[in-house]
Amino acid sequence: MRIVLIGTGNVATRLGIALRARNAEIIQVFGRSETVTSQFASTLGCNFTVNIKEIATDADIYLMAVSDDAIAGLAADLHGKDGLVVHTAGSIPMEILASGSNNYGVFYPLQTLSKQKEVDFSTIPFCIEANSNENLEKLRQLASTISEKVVVMNSEQRRQIHLSAVFVCNFVNHLYSVGEQLLLDQNLDFDLLRPLIRETAEKAMLFSPPAVQTGPAVRGNNSVMDEHLKMLENHPQWHELYDLISKDIRYFQ
Amino acid sequence: MRIVLIGTGNVATRLGIALRARNAEIIQVFGRSETVTSQFASTLGCNFTVNIKEIATDADIYLMAVSDDAIAGLAADLHGKDGLVVHTAGSIPMEILASGSNNYGVFYPLQTLSKQKEVDFSTIPFCIEANSNENLEKLRQLASTISEKVVVMNSEQRRQIHLSAVFVCNFVNHLYSVGEQLLLDQNLDFDLLRPLIRETAEKAMLFSPPAVQTGPAVRGNNSVMDEHLKMLENHPQWHELYDLISKDIRYFQ
Repeated sequence: MRIVLIGTGNVATRLGIALRARNAEIIQVFGRSETVTSQFASTLGCNFTVNIKEIATDADIYLMAVSDDAIAGLAADLHGKDGLVVHTAGSIPMEILASGSNNYGVFYPLQTLSKQKEVDFSTIPFCIEANSNENLEKLRQLASTISEKVVVMNSEQRRQIHLSAVFVCNFVNHLYSVGEQLLLDQNLDFDLLRPLIRETAEKAMLFSPPAVQTGPAVRGNNSVMDEHLKMLENHPQWHELYDLISKDIRYFQ
Repeated sequence: MRIVLIGTGNVATRLGIALRARNAEIIQVFGRSETVTSQFASTLGCNFTVNIKEIATDADIYLMAVSDDAIAGLAADLHGKDGLVVHTAGSIPMEILASGSNNYGVFYPLQTLSKQKEVDFSTIPFCIEANSNENLEKLRQLASTISEKVVVMNSEQRRQIHLSAVFVCNFVNHLYSVGEQLLLDQNLDFDLLRPLIRETAEKAMLFSPPAVQTGPAVRGNNSVMDEHLKMLENHPQWHELYDLISKDIRYFQ
């Protein structure tokens, strides 16, 4: 399968490197910045272009890992290509690609990907969708080269998964940021919290999270909660957040 | 060091088992329920009592791992004992123990502990505090038998750490619960989110969390955020939570 990779951001970077490591045939990378794109292409050992008109016409798959807002425009630019055009976004319906191509689909890795950090792709769920069984099989084949967990899912289910992912990943990371900042305010080291962060995640590997909820809110320890709220008076938004989540923990049990 | 362990809950259980595994001399367990306490004592291979008046008088350390509300009362009950009386709570000042004893301190493991799950104590930060250098050394010695990370900290710093811990552990776990529930609503399996949860935590082992924040909020992707808010209309409290955290992510960058 000859692949054109469109994008040079976090998802394109990790996906490109993972596919390349499994000997996938990436023939070209497209990006906006010549510096970034040429550098990425040399990492992957393939050609590159920053001119949309120079994108290869004979690829089997055009893999778009770009910002949500760019997907529709790029799909229109790919109009007339025979290959399978796919995007990698959680919340964008597959049908956004319908007007530009006869062969289209979605190839969504359910993981937080950053240029800075390698990640084990074998455990990442790939949520795939396509406009025909034949195209679905192509995506299944491609995903299987890097992951053991390929899941067929429609756009509505993918949208729901993405919403859940925002809670357990993006919002969780923000709570880590809050925890770090509260320690920095006291000249304490974030390292102190790291074993706790890891263990909290490891518990969720084994249990349903409500079954292992701990802390003042679930115990109904009002005196500690009141004290914590007082400590947050200089951070009104975290005060509100503390109050809201604590109430929700009580309500949820 | 002869230890009396007071309590039979999550912290007492994990602490007792960890100390026992390193050959600490636990001579007695005290608890309220005869069934639970006798079972725990047999796990530890020691005596037990459910009568506060029968607590051993010749211990070196009385280790209280009980609910915050019970600490002051139990400390009063231990009045007259020579041994070092310590509690294991994050948000309770050491001085609560001053009236009951001449030797007192705090022995706070900064970790989420559950009866159901073993945990590697060697990486857990132990925050210790005592009313004299001699007592502090005793606590340092005891903590060092099970952990490589012993930190001397006053009650105010411990209180701040506990607040941070609530954000990165208790609140994080609640967000896992929300993510699970949103998937269950759609008959999707929580297993799909587990690799993402683990990777999000692993990223925090290596980076400062704001540096690796991902998702619609940090990208300012309003169309996805608006769509997510619409999807949460049946869950008003999570709608509010989504809005609050998303705004805070933008504000924090």
